[in-house]
Amino acid sequence: MDGTEVSRVEDLQDHLHPYTDLALEATAALRGDAHTEIPGVRLTEHQYDDATVSWVEVFSPQGAQAIGKAMGNYVTIDAPRLRERNPDVQEAVGQVLVEQLAKMLQLGPDGSALVVGLGNRNATPDALGPRVVEKLLVTRHLKGLVPTDVAGGLRSVAAIAPGVLGVTGIETAEVIFGVVERIKPDVVICVDSLAAGSVERLGTTIQLADTGINPGSGIGNQRRALSKESLGVPVIALGVPTVVHAANIVNDAFERMAATFVGQKPFFQLFNSPEERQQLMRDILSPTVGALVVTPKNVDDLIDDTAKVIAGSLNAVLHTSIEARDLLRYLN
Amino acid sequence: MDGTEVSRVEDLQDHLHPYTDLALEATAALRGDAHTEIPGVRLTEHQYDDATVSWVEVFSPQGAQAIGKAMGNYVTIDAPRLRERNPDVQEAVGQVLVEQLAKMLQLGPDGSALVVGLGNRNATPDALGPRVVEKLLVTRHLKGLVPTDVAGGLRSVAAIAPGVLGVTGIETAEVIFGVVERIKPDVVICVDSLAAGSVERLGTTIQLADTGINPGSGIGNQRRALSKESLGVPVIALGVPTVVHAANIVNDAFERMAATFVGQKPFFQLFNSPEERQQLMRDILSPTVGALVVTPKNVDDLIDDTAKVIAGSLNAVLHTSIEARDLLRYLN
Amino acid sequence: MDGTEVSRVEDLQDHLHPYTDLALEATAALRGDAHTEIPGVRLTEHQYDDATVSWVEVFSPQGAQAIGKAMGNYVTIDAPRLRERNPDVQEAVGQVLVEQLAKMLQLGPDGSALVVGLGNRNATPDALGPRVVEKLLVTRHLKGLVPTDVAGGLRSVAAIAPGVLGVTGIETAEVIFGVVERIKPDVVICVDSLAAGSVERLGTTIQLADTGINPGSGIGNQRRALSKESLGVPVIALGVPTVVHAANIVNDAFERMAATFVGQKPFFQLFNSPEERQQLMRDILSPTVGALVVTPKNVDDLIDDTAKVIAGSLNAVLHTSIEARDLLRYLN
Amino acid sequence: MDGTEVSRVEDLQDHLHPYTDLALEATAALRGDAHTEIPGVRLTEHQYDDATVSWVEVFSPQGAQAIGKAMGNYVTIDAPRLRERNPDVQEAVGQVLVEQLAKMLQLGPDGSALVVGLGNRNATPDALGPRVVEKLLVTRHLKGLVPTDVAGGLRSVAAIAPGVLGVTGIETAEVIFGVVERIKPDVVICVDSLAAGSVERLGTTIQLADTGINPGSGIGNQRRALSKESLGVPVIALGVPTVVHAANIVNDAFERMAATFVGQKPFFQLFNSPEERQQLMRDILSPTVGALVVTPKNVDDLIDDTAKVIAGSLNAVLHTSIEARDLLRYLN
Repeated sequence: MDGTEVSRVEDLQDHLHPYTDLALEATAALRGDAHTEIPGVRLTEHQYDDATVSWVEVFSPQGAQAIGKAMGNYVTIDAPRLRERNPDVQEAVGQVLVEQLAKMLQLGPDGSALVVGLGNRNATPDALGPRVVEKLLVTRHLKGLVPTDVAGGLRSVAAIAPGVLGVTGIETAEVIFGVVERIKPDVVICVDSLAAGSVERLGTTIQLADTGINPGSGIGNQRRALSKESLGVPVIALGVPTVVHAANIVNDAFERMAATFVGQKPFFQLFNSPEERQQLMRDILSPTVGALVVTPKNVDDLIDDTAKVIAGSLNAVLHTSIEARDLLRYLN
Repeated sequence: MDGTEVSRVEDLQDHLHPYTDLALEATAALRGDAHTEIPGVRLTEHQYDDATVSWVEVFSPQGAQAIGKAMGNYVTIDAPRLRERNPDVQEAVGQVLVEQLAKMLQLGPDGSALVVGLGNRNATPDALGPRVVEKLLVTRHLKGLVPTDVAGGLRSVAAIAPGVLGVTGIETAEVIFGVVERIKPDVVICVDSLAAGSVERLGTTIQLADTGINPGSGIGNQRRALSKESLGVPVIALGVPTVVHAANIVNDAFERMAATFVGQKPFFQLFNSPEERQQLMRDILSPTVGALVVTPKNVDDLIDDTAKVIAGSLNAVLHTSIEARDLLRYLN
Repeated sequence: MDGTEVSRVEDLQDHLHPYTDLALEATAALRGDAHTEIPGVRLTEHQYDDATVSWVEVFSPQGAQAIGKAMGNYVTIDAPRLRERNPDVQEAVGQVLVEQLAKMLQLGPDGSALVVGLGNRNATPDALGPRVVEKLLVTRHLKGLVPTDVAGGLRSVAAIAPGVLGVTGIETAEVIFGVVERIKPDVVICVDSLAAGSVERLGTTIQLADTGINPGSGIGNQRRALSKESLGVPVIALGVPTVVHAANIVNDAFERMAATFVGQKPFFQLFNSPEERQQLMRDILSPTVGALVVTPKNVDDLIDDTAKVIAGSLNAVLHTSIEARDLLRYLN
Repeated sequence: MDGTEVSRVEDLQDHLHPYTDLALEATAALRGDAHTEIPGVRLTEHQYDDATVSWVEVFSPQGAQAIGKAMGNYVTIDAPRLRERNPDVQEAVGQVLVEQLAKMLQLGPDGSALVVGLGNRNATPDALGPRVVEKLLVTRHLKGLVPTDVAGGLRSVAAIAPGVLGVTGIETAEVIFGVVERIKPDVVICVDSLAAGSVERLGTTIQLADTGINPGSGIGNQRRALSKESLGVPVIALGVPTVVHAANIVNDAFERMAATFVGQKPFFQLFNSPEERQQLMRDILSPTVGALVVTPKNVDDLIDDTAKVIAGSLNAVLHTSIEARDLLRYLN
């Protein structure tokens, strides 16, 4: 979710593949079972004990067009065991996140950061950003007040949860631009809830990107984009899927049905024709289904657990005095 | 939702019609477009300005078997305009609810009530019961402390939100039995979140039933039922749909597809065979989909609005000194 | 509370009178029982059914020095019956607030407003500002999207709760300056929790001021002040006392003791010497007491009720299509 | 706080010493600086790294009368460093609590427990009990469902937060009696917010008692007491001070004043006469002060931190598979 509006069914019907905020899913959908190369997109993987890390590098406009994501680097941490709600697993995955964040941030010892919690704190599936902000160790206001040796391992960190347009009447970007101009951080990290293509990814996948936040994607609404170009400092986007569009669930069931019947029932040949299939989806998905999202009933727990791992990892990567293995212990 | 467990996909696959907690939907699904009479089930309707009230009377075991609901009376208030979040509409619908509740409760001027808020206050879509309890005007403890003329229009009302099994380790019914034995109310009113068959009903339908709460329905787990038989006093169930099982969304899309293609593509003849259709659904719905629920993204607002209307209506019907038209003004 | 730091006991010991954010209390303390005129300060009163409205006009630097408040107009609405939690009283007081706000705002039909909710949403006594913001009818983002006749009675209203320094690491004023520069409202309204001098005022007094928000008062920290001078648009401060500094409670008990014993016990002559009394207070109030605040145990209800009245009044004064008498009916 | 009513100023004026729920404070007040022995009360102490543990044994009715607490054992853990909000300290103090709880509970490997969270979840200073319950690892409903080897280190634990009389209209004890009769635990542990005599103890002292919960203390309202006598199983009370009565703050200032002036000013001789002093306090404390409580402004953090330590310790003492040193890691 982009913090300002719900992705609309019209948008997703413009793609042959179901809607997802995850570059990895978009890539996988295009590559298909045959793992076809996509021009302009490079995919590599690394395996950890409790997580798989995938890098999707979108290095040409052609690649961006193909998968519907901006050019840049997308790191996906896939950790199905996060579903177990086990602190050992949370810490292990958090340490992987710390490592990947450190690579992407490239922040010097005196670097400063602004963490932006996007989303609506009062709509649970959209509350991840504001919840992370609440748990962060914020230090910018302490600089100059505490002795250097105490503050030694603490970078200057500020954090804000600007709310969503429907609640404030102000574009999120307008608030962020104003704050960045005044406090001039070395990097901006935006935390947000995402929409995944499949329910298995809810609360188990973490995506990092150095492309900033582009509400409305490539459609060119550059005014609202939070990116290095618009803000003048690197913008890292960190998100976790908390919802799946209801349309995807339906699509998924159709895929399964097609997989079962293709060859047996001539009707399912149409699934081999993208145009017919797209038309079918357009016809059967009412606008009502389009606006709905699917969440697990325990979405409150999912948000809470995920906020802990992300806030803990941000604390550990931003403050060198906090050890990565203790990332769950220094949360507000 | 029955306050203790998620309905499982296996259960719903045992029915030809998609899963719903609403007797009206179960009846409509069976009657079909031809409005066939169902033996043992009587349906009547009454039209109000902003609401349609339907009575479903299940008067024989055969009828109960047919629609999968216990014998008794089900009143459904259908008010699509509740979606507008307009206090005028909320009050108008509240007044209809007050009228229907008064009929079903048949409570004398000195009657006492226990309101039970079922569900989990920390899982938003399941929090309706506990939220209603928080907003109620509770008076049982004031009896004997305030002068009779002041307390004149106030019945003795107690309220409890016992939590859910997964959080307390105690069956909801065990708590309620214990409390009812001790405080001996004249009636028990259980407020709960429900699962609807279609998304249009989320937050716009209110169901009243005099059958009590039967977790596990007709399956015979009589030990846990909260009913007149088990508690010794009438048990009124009051619920509002806040989720739709994801399986229903898929089923709905299939129906739509069938309606489009039947006659054109031979495959869809199978939808005319209940057995084949049932088998199809079984095959394509993974266990994962079965456990998922669909909620609108603004489920927090939906729960909040609905809790106001229900708590206001309960206050007005239980305390004669509160006028029905003021039902939104005396909420805690 | 000024949204950024707790008033400290050292500050209040610099005044002979106990600490208060209310100009009316500061004035009354100085005037004493004899109602002595204070040079540079004018006080007038008007009586309503459920409220007394007092205007304190501080019209000279001498007056500002005397009562320790910036030059400007302070309107105090004193409504002890708010404690009854009765919607009739809340509406009546809200209508008085609407009237006073309309006078102070002087907003044209096309005027726009930014409402700033100061304070920390997670510390209940400090949460008034953020809670008001949550309940407001925000419209700025709808302009241009809805037809003029529908939007006719709605002014452009934006709202933000920027959080407190300790949580964000960012001065509240830095966020507000950035937002005001970008969205250029015609007026800024800051809502905040205040500290009163006496417990009777908790939740029963509303103060309006056209002086802006001056953290650190007249002490000259102009950088952080939110005022017409610094922001370029009128800044209205709207606050309600939610705490009393513990030191005031002690002072109050001493006053009472002195009133009882003066004349009987020679010790209490010292209360007639401001210097000795001030020294006494300094000696007996430990730093611990200084940092403590006194709140009623039901401060959660107090904040909730007060937020309703203020948000309802702001909605009614900002949106001409909302009638003042309906101010409790259109709250988010 | 006793979960049902606010201690009233009349009650505390019946004691010469200021009001406290802590047996240790009541004992210390009586013993005075001279550490006089109190007949029927035995006090011993043990020093840990980050905590001092004191046992107050009240072993005769004369002792109970003297300190105004029921006969039994009171263990006080005094840990000022809890104020630092440091997880190392929280774990160290938690381990001390685990040790003391284990001694007091004497629970066999197959023993079962019911944890009762007293207080009002919506009034922050009174929310400790309900918050602890939310964080507990509850297992009673899993017995018989999970394999014995998995469940091996897990005792059967149930938990309930019955709410307060003003919200439910039901005496807390009525709910608890009902639940205990039905689920028959081997021990009941009641968690509650307490009132301390001095502000230094807020959030830094933990009291354990084997006397049960006696609302109205020794006054004999036996009907409402939760104790081994009334429930048939041991009842352990576990509490942390979250408020100080405002009257205590005033009293404390007077003590300080007296300590300064006694000998210098004849007035302060009256503090040596308990009767005169008591009369003085009665005269100067208005009923308003009596009903007020003093809390730190960050009471939300205090409740949150304290709930973590207590829930973590209860998990570790009740479930042998959770190591005491990991007590902060297995919280819901």
